[in-house]
Amino acid sequence: MTVKQGEMAPSGRKVTLGLIQMTTTSDLAANTDKCLTRIREAADNGAQIICTQELFRGPYPCQEEDHSVFESAEALPGPTTDRLSAIAKEKGVVIVSSHFERRAAGVFHNTACVFDADGTMLGIYRKMHIPDDPHFYEKFYFAPGDLGFKSFKTKFANVGVLVCWDQWYPEAARLTALQGAEILFYPTAIGWLKGEEESVNHSQYVSWETIQRGHAVANGCYVAAVNRTGTEENIEFWGQSFVSDPQGVVAAKAPADQEQTLLCEVDLGYIEHQRVYWPFFRDRRIDAYGDMTKRFIDGNP
Amino acid sequence: MTVKQGEMAPSGRKVTLGLIQMTTTSDLAANTDKCLTRIREAADNGAQIICTQELFRGPYPCQEEDHSVFESAEALPGPTTDRLSAIAKEKGVVIVSSHFERRAAGVFHNTACVFDADGTMLGIYRKMHIPDDPHFYEKFYFAPGDLGFKSFKTKFANVGVLVCWDQWYPEAARLTALQGAEILFYPTAIGWLKGEEESVNHSQYVSWETIQRGHAVANGCYVAAVNRTGTEENIEFWGQSFVSDPQGVVAAKAPADQEQTLLCEVDLGYIEHQRVYWPFFRDRRIDAYGDMTKRFIDGNP
Repeated sequence: MTVKQGEMAPSGRKVTLGLIQMTTTSDLAANTDKCLTRIREAADNGAQIICTQELFRGPYPCQEEDHSVFESAEALPGPTTDRLSAIAKEKGVVIVSSHFERRAAGVFHNTACVFDADGTMLGIYRKMHIPDDPHFYEKFYFAPGDLGFKSFKTKFANVGVLVCWDQWYPEAARLTALQGAEILFYPTAIGWLKGEEESVNHSQYVSWETIQRGHAVANGCYVAAVNRTGTEENIEFWGQSFVSDPQGVVAAKAPADQEQTLLCEVDLGYIEHQRVYWPFFRDRRIDAYGDMTKRFIDGNP
Repeated sequence: MTVKQGEMAPSGRKVTLGLIQMTTTSDLAANTDKCLTRIREAADNGAQIICTQELFRGPYPCQEEDHSVFESAEALPGPTTDRLSAIAKEKGVVIVSSHFERRAAGVFHNTACVFDADGTMLGIYRKMHIPDDPHFYEKFYFAPGDLGFKSFKTKFANVGVLVCWDQWYPEAARLTALQGAEILFYPTAIGWLKGEEESVNHSQYVSWETIQRGHAVANGCYVAAVNRTGTEENIEFWGQSFVSDPQGVVAAKAPADQEQTLLCEVDLGYIEHQRVYWPFFRDRRIDAYGDMTKRFIDGNP
């Protein structure tokens, strides 16, 4: 299948994204100050929608099962989101941020917040898919999200937010895009275990980038993955935050081992164009997808 | 997220795939003979599961809306599948083939057949997602499949079959993998329109390869895409049939502009390994995927 393209030019509805890729230390206040400074700088440099890495206030908190770590969780809204809201309003930018949410005694979530350009917190998304692997003990810390998949109408674009492990699930991308999201943001904390072989590392990175570029293709939208960098205990975070266009082409990419605020202008008109020329949404067999709600389909073969 | 790999070695359950990438002419008998000869040669060279390109008997039939083209459709089972069955039995190989099926007067499908290594036709899959674009007028020719997504237990592997436009749908890959498919075969007829710009061509190919590698990652399985090559009227078929491993790494790839029988040994033990180390199936939020059966989710945002 292919079609002649180029006759329907992108509309010119352009937006500049800012992806804040950082290292963190055990000093939560310093990490927060650094991230907020970088958000201000990104705005001053033209970014209009700015996204943090996953759980930017601290080191990745799930490398061990440690009850004292829950003390670093925060209420939403709370002091950090108040500051983010103020920056969004002052600079006139949209901010997507990632937080260790204390919802109630013993109820914690891995939660993203979306602030519109007037400082309004439009809503939150609670990470739906919770991993659990050696040194990523998230099922110990986070209750699974109970808000479903969401898209937020902001001043500059319709924004979907998904978090890290969600990025391996085509269902999450699809259900967010079906609600109108034009850009899928993925605050992330992914890396290599120390001492792993180089070839294994490479194929893991390939998997990660490929599946997210695939989500962009499947849904005819932009994808922006915002990862942390630096080494924390057992994990070398692999950075390489990137933006994929609706054809799965990497439009911008940060380095592996350095902090960077990655700015990338995207053209939202490209989405309209792509979805008309590659009309995947038109032909979905919605009569035949009922079994997506099954864990596995036994007995065949 | 990452994990230390390498401790669970692949099991050594190895299978060699054969992908038959060809040109075709208006001589259906000659095309059929060529394809069957190539299947025999692939088997003699060690292929155990052999897949044809989409609608291998003829030129891609959907470039114009022409009622006379329906005369090239065939019954299933019929003379062609009888020959394929005989080769499967004689050579002891599994064959996946693609056919323009005449099911009844006025009821035609784009259908794949799966033959086990004893010659038994295990079943058919009727293309579920039907495209319709300039020079790909498939909605004129093919009724949408009514058998759903399927996996077939063959002598060498559990085999899923999807056809061309299906390859853009993560739902199709998922529902086939959930039934146990270890390898997803995609008989395909995709190419560039004559006169299209090189940059457009490149990004289209990137999209096509990327999304299918993404299916391999999402489902921890192999993907084998079998495309035609050569120029027919308005379309330059882009060949480049390929096999992706469960991490989305291209394991083998045919050239763009030449016929090739692409042989690729795959290790089915890698699937078990990958799905244990990257347990995506464990964490699917099957309680939250109900809206996959909606065309679009209006009103939000």
